[in-house]
Amino acid sequence: MIPAEVPSALSLDERDPLRSFKSRFVPAADDVAYLDGNSLGRLPVSTPPRLAEIVKQWGERLIRGWEEGWLELPLTLGNRLGASLLGAQAGEVALAESTTVCLYKLASAALDARPERSEIVTDRDNFPTDRYVLEGLAESRGLRIRWIETGAELGPRPADVAAVVGPETALVALSHVAYRSAFLLDMAGISTVAREAGALILWDLSHSVGVIPIALESDGADLAVGCTYKYLNSGPGAPAFLYVRAEHQRALRQPIWGWLGRRDPFSMAQGYEPAAGIGAMLSGTPPIIALTAVSAGLDLVVEAGIDAVRAKAMALGDFVIARHEEWLAPLGVKLGSPYAAAERGGHVALVHPDAAGLCRALAIRGVIVDFRPPDIIRVGLSPLSTSFADAERGLAELRDLLTN
Amino acid sequence: MIPAEVPSALSLDERDPLRSFKSRFVPAADDVAYLDGNSLGRLPVSTPPRLAEIVKQWGERLIRGWEEGWLELPLTLGNRLGASLLGAQAGEVALAESTTVCLYKLASAALDARPERSEIVTDRDNFPTDRYVLEGLAESRGLRIRWIETGAELGPRPADVAAVVGPETALVALSHVAYRSAFLLDMAGISTVAREAGALILWDLSHSVGVIPIALESDGADLAVGCTYKYLNSGPGAPAFLYVRAEHQRALRQPIWGWLGRRDPFSMAQGYEPAAGIGAMLSGTPPIIALTAVSAGLDLVVEAGIDAVRAKAMALGDFVIARHEEWLAPLGVKLGSPYAAAERGGHVALVHPDAAGLCRALAIRGVIVDFRPPDIIRVGLSPLSTSFADAERGLAELRDLLTN
Repeated sequence: MIPAEVPSALSLDERDPLRSFKSRFVPAADDVAYLDGNSLGRLPVSTPPRLAEIVKQWGERLIRGWEEGWLELPLTLGNRLGASLLGAQAGEVALAESTTVCLYKLASAALDARPERSEIVTDRDNFPTDRYVLEGLAESRGLRIRWIETGAELGPRPADVAAVVGPETALVALSHVAYRSAFLLDMAGISTVAREAGALILWDLSHSVGVIPIALESDGADLAVGCTYKYLNSGPGAPAFLYVRAEHQRALRQPIWGWLGRRDPFSMAQGYEPAAGIGAMLSGTPPIIALTAVSAGLDLVVEAGIDAVRAKAMALGDFVIARHEEWLAPLGVKLGSPYAAAERGGHVALVHPDAAGLCRALAIRGVIVDFRPPDIIRVGLSPLSTSFADAERGLAELRDLLTN
Repeated sequence: MIPAEVPSALSLDERDPLRSFKSRFVPAADDVAYLDGNSLGRLPVSTPPRLAEIVKQWGERLIRGWEEGWLELPLTLGNRLGASLLGAQAGEVALAESTTVCLYKLASAALDARPERSEIVTDRDNFPTDRYVLEGLAESRGLRIRWIETGAELGPRPADVAAVVGPETALVALSHVAYRSAFLLDMAGISTVAREAGALILWDLSHSVGVIPIALESDGADLAVGCTYKYLNSGPGAPAFLYVRAEHQRALRQPIWGWLGRRDPFSMAQGYEPAAGIGAMLSGTPPIIALTAVSAGLDLVVEAGIDAVRAKAMALGDFVIARHEEWLAPLGVKLGSPYAAAERGGHVALVHPDAAGLCRALAIRGVIVDFRPPDIIRVGLSPLSTSFADAERGLAELRDLLTN
């Protein structure tokens, strides 16, 4: 509940148990209120030396680095990510390519596993790359996409999914947190709906990983992918991750058969035989420098603890909503996110007809948010690097723009 | 021609116009003769500061970096690579993911473009990941692979390709330089054979880019992919590149429909429409830090000039072959590469039944080569960082091992 009297940003920052983490990130070149860590996370102070170290290892150890941990990095880092943030078992998570490519691999594998079914279920407001990947797969296989049209709702609930899944559904693919509204989907409830229909469920965790505790195993997820350059602060275009529940690993086969997804790759033998376990989802040579930045970014979230991160995300969101009600609602700005913190991811969407122009004007005033067409100002709240004062400054500037 | 009296490594190094480039690479931690730059190139001295700079830009400019050149980097870097080393036009080359994923995209697009044809042609000794990708595509589409079996030959010639292509051939996919023998394939001759059969030709340039001048346009290549972590010295698991001849770009459609391959991606609109040109081959968010290392690595080769690099590669290979004849042939080591420099890429294969054990023993003596099953010692000669003295030391140690 949001108290009638909104506490000051200053007092909230003083009481914030994670406040010291802000100094663990490199300051921007200018004095900005960075409210876009949900799009590109900040640079951890620990990342440049970690990168320097791995680059030094390349220079000094040369090809021998592959025998000194590089080759296993997609899986060792996957295990660490899976155990600390995803609620996954060892051997269920690997780092690879981009979210787009990971999604393509897993969705393709899922469709191959349900060859008699003709439909893919996703929602109309799913992240663009997710929709496009699914559309490409549907077109190439002659499948149909059943769109969940949530209309005025902020995102699909189990009943919305149940209304479109059926005996023809091969795959349900959804984002855990909606990229526009920040609506947090009910992973357990929707996974049950999909499973009961005999479909596989694939979660895109891009907007939840590192800001919300995730329980893939206990929530019944079959497959998942996600991004590391948002709340995991791993750098522009950082590698993504994929998860395949252990019980499916024998049956699912991904389409991009590469040497590093093969059993015993350095035998360079004739014929492809998938590696055992999650390694079969790999394809090409893993990007060692980029993975090292992921490792550094992950460490910070693990150190802070995901429960503390989530608590601060909720508090930041509640604070933004309180200031919205006090300052912005009277000026015609609507709330485009769930009011209840328990249903909300790590950002808050504010809706205004001139959102695009307001975002540009905010940038000139040193407030960095992002615009999502047609009318959303996304206020990103990355708990380790965003202070209550940053959020307040952003909303105060917006109020000022709308008043003057 | 190799002279009867082999000049000393010292005199060859003294006369080497590229000798100063060796100091442009970071020295290894130990005193090794690194003869494996064809597997993982060395670290350029210029790369760590370039990486530090781009990481600093991430920290200081944050999301704004995407509007300050990051977003275009796969294409601007592709243009630079294409113009300087590939003989490609502007707008024909992009950097993306790994060689494996790029190969998958282009091979898939090519097969879609020849839907009435049932066969893929490649050679039995093609690099493993190339074979596996093609096998996966063949299996999923019910196609047949027609293998070129070159037997005792070092690699396929146009006549070998002509013997297996036909009216059912959709795609011919070959490596420009064979990864084991270093045999340099006749790109123009083989491309003509493929084109005359109505097939598309896809070249894997991984073992030639940066060490051999490539003329994709004038040699009639349709498609190409390649790796940047060998002769382009871009780091372990660095991004790969892909080339699509301009005249094919409208007709070819790749399978991984992601937001960054879409027209106007930030409209985040419904429905996928491919971007114009080579950008349609992109999928996910480009890896900016990793691409920056590619840029630094490419600069060095461009500065040296590819013709000078090729001249030194030939001289190094001739030198290794001369020493082989003098020192190693009498000890039972066979030459597994073309004798003529004009038919040879940037490494020399030496064949011995105990190649695996010899490679391990060489490593203990500080000579780093690599082993390729079942019986090949690959002596990698990376012209910018390998001296004649390095090569001589490697062969002298091998002689010593075989003598004692």
